[in-house]
Amino acid sequence: MPPPFSQAEYENRLQLVQTVMAGRELDALVIGDPANMNWLTGFDAWSFYVPQVMVVEVDRLPVWIGRAMDAGAVGLTTHLGSDCVVPYPEDLVQRDDTHPSTFMARWLSDRGLGGKRLGYESDSFFFSPRALAGLQAGLPDARWVDADRLVNWVRAVKSPAEIELLRQAALLAGSAMQVAWDAVQPGVRQCDLVAKIMAAQVRGTEAFGGDQTAICPLILAGEGAGTAHPLWTDERFEKNQTVAFEIGGTRRRYNAGLARTAHLGKPPEKLTRTLAAVNEGLDAVLAVLKAGVNAGDVHQAWQSVLDVYGLEKPSRIGYSIGVGYPPDWGERTISLRAEETTVIPENAVLHVMLGMWLDGWGMEMSETVHVTASGCECLTQFPRELHIGG
Amino acid sequence: MPPPFSQAEYENRLQLVQTVMAGRELDALVIGDPANMNWLTGFDAWSFYVPQVMVVEVDRLPVWIGRAMDAGAVGLTTHLGSDCVVPYPEDLVQRDDTHPSTFMARWLSDRGLGGKRLGYESDSFFFSPRALAGLQAGLPDARWVDADRLVNWVRAVKSPAEIELLRQAALLAGSAMQVAWDAVQPGVRQCDLVAKIMAAQVRGTEAFGGDQTAICPLILAGEGAGTAHPLWTDERFEKNQTVAFEIGGTRRRYNAGLARTAHLGKPPEKLTRTLAAVNEGLDAVLAVLKAGVNAGDVHQAWQSVLDVYGLEKPSRIGYSIGVGYPPDWGERTISLRAEETTVIPENAVLHVMLGMWLDGWGMEMSETVHVTASGCECLTQFPRELHIGG
Repeated sequence: MPPPFSQAEYENRLQLVQTVMAGRELDALVIGDPANMNWLTGFDAWSFYVPQVMVVEVDRLPVWIGRAMDAGAVGLTTHLGSDCVVPYPEDLVQRDDTHPSTFMARWLSDRGLGGKRLGYESDSFFFSPRALAGLQAGLPDARWVDADRLVNWVRAVKSPAEIELLRQAALLAGSAMQVAWDAVQPGVRQCDLVAKIMAAQVRGTEAFGGDQTAICPLILAGEGAGTAHPLWTDERFEKNQTVAFEIGGTRRRYNAGLARTAHLGKPPEKLTRTLAAVNEGLDAVLAVLKAGVNAGDVHQAWQSVLDVYGLEKPSRIGYSIGVGYPPDWGERTISLRAEETTVIPENAVLHVMLGMWLDGWGMEMSETVHVTASGCECLTQFPRELHIGG
Repeated sequence: MPPPFSQAEYENRLQLVQTVMAGRELDALVIGDPANMNWLTGFDAWSFYVPQVMVVEVDRLPVWIGRAMDAGAVGLTTHLGSDCVVPYPEDLVQRDDTHPSTFMARWLSDRGLGGKRLGYESDSFFFSPRALAGLQAGLPDARWVDADRLVNWVRAVKSPAEIELLRQAALLAGSAMQVAWDAVQPGVRQCDLVAKIMAAQVRGTEAFGGDQTAICPLILAGEGAGTAHPLWTDERFEKNQTVAFEIGGTRRRYNAGLARTAHLGKPPEKLTRTLAAVNEGLDAVLAVLKAGVNAGDVHQAWQSVLDVYGLEKPSRIGYSIGVGYPPDWGERTISLRAEETTVIPENAVLHVMLGMWLDGWGMEMSETVHVTASGCECLTQFPRELHIGG
């Protein structure tokens, strides 16, 4: 499969990143986040369980440095040539006495970056303290600058081609949610339901398949409903349980999130009342969400509704979403919460996630939303009412 | 669901870790690896996409510090009481100007650990340079010691109850492989096949369900077969393709790995010859593998067979396997490779993984193996011959 975007689009992304780098006087940026590597070049492999980096300089193509057995994935999944592929030897893998970062540092030094200003991602998932220490030890004259989320912030604004993939991802999320609604019943094991959900996510449609979602399907039922990210069990759904689902759809690594709630029996009034308030809050959010507004003002629209109903939600109500590998589909940039001053750009895509994890029960409602100049559009399309199962 | 092991077993694990800590004169150990948290206490949630740590002191129960919305998972999945749960507030999540590690450092200081000798995991997946820097800044008088893989090495020796879960995991891996063999045909899309595989992994058996495997199903077909960890695509299998599968099974977070190879048509001689050599090499490995042998000597048994056939494999041929979350099921301790002096302990469980990624094609063969005092036993049970599909 060729990369999902044209060479021109990747060149444009690279230039955007290089422009930010130049503004911060970075000679190079060492990327550890596989989602950032994918977004910049298309690189796509399950190779992030060992140290790997992508090195971006201000005037050259990105270079991948990773485990030798995974080097073939660069040619398979990107437009990059073999001069952008630097495999490290197998005997560096998972040893006490050495580390791949020693090799990486030598390469950076040979590249002439020894005395330069180098950015690194301080808080991405797959760039460890030991990797950083190895680079710093091997390049003692370099000036190391925390450039965490530099690429992520550029990613916050999506291209038309990215919106199209996110639309497809949202369609997959909706299909998977429909499978969940159709199958959730008292007596069904959670694992059996998740098996159907995951199969739907990956099978996709006749026109296109799906990828693994960066967050696995989450089911909040029974005791598990008071916490945000429980993992499924062998337990059976029970009559009169409230069951919240957070289910993604992923297309070429682009994730859309979707949350809905079902009740297996006659719903209690506290549930229908809370859902009505949440849906009113969601409407309020979607009514104010457009390019140019502050993230904090979007949150205020939600808070005003909650205040009317006397409800509380201490956590943020949304975040930027896009390319992602486990364990997260969030881009760790824009957050919708009180007093957040980030101005939401045109063509941001946000997962507006209204999870209410209350005392011993919970409910969820969410949409993946494309922010436009004049307003916003829900990419996810699924009925917002409570599903009555059983 | 209660934790998979008794309180006594978790107490025993904690003591084993505390004994190693005492030997290294560590007053506390800050764990970032969710697999280590799970192994020590049963803690199980999709909460590792934000900073979280587990703090182990030499004379107290472990304490989890994580995002408030995930705090409920401790009570749900462990034997720990509420005094072992420290939620950090939501306004620390994914901000530029602050970080959860500031909160964690304050807690450690209040706990009296400010001037102590503190171990940390330098190369685990979910403990970032920024997290470490935040802890160090908040506890300037502490002595920070790299204790990477301290817990992992203790995990290398499995208890009877762990072997039993790994046996169940291996059974799930075999069922999923059978689904792959039954369904792989020219014209079938890779995504459709993976949908069936993942459903089988999670559905499990009537007696027990499965978890998400820490490494997603890997399919090496066509161009993708020359690299070790490609991700599935929408492409259709073709007649005369060699297709290698690496498929796990996971039970209560315990992973077993299984790799096999199929050919869609009449197999070329190079494939049958290579498979015969690999199977002979596997037999040689299993013949020498028992408690007390050196990892390097196990590799030598394999190398002697490869030498006869003039084949090369630069990468290691196995590693310790067990509890794992994405992106890895390997424990990053024992590796089977040349000149490795690690003595393999009784009740180690190894994924003996013989992947041959050759020029434009590849094949794979593996077993998950329990090492005993007198030899070893394959937990995975699946025919080793080439599968002829199509």
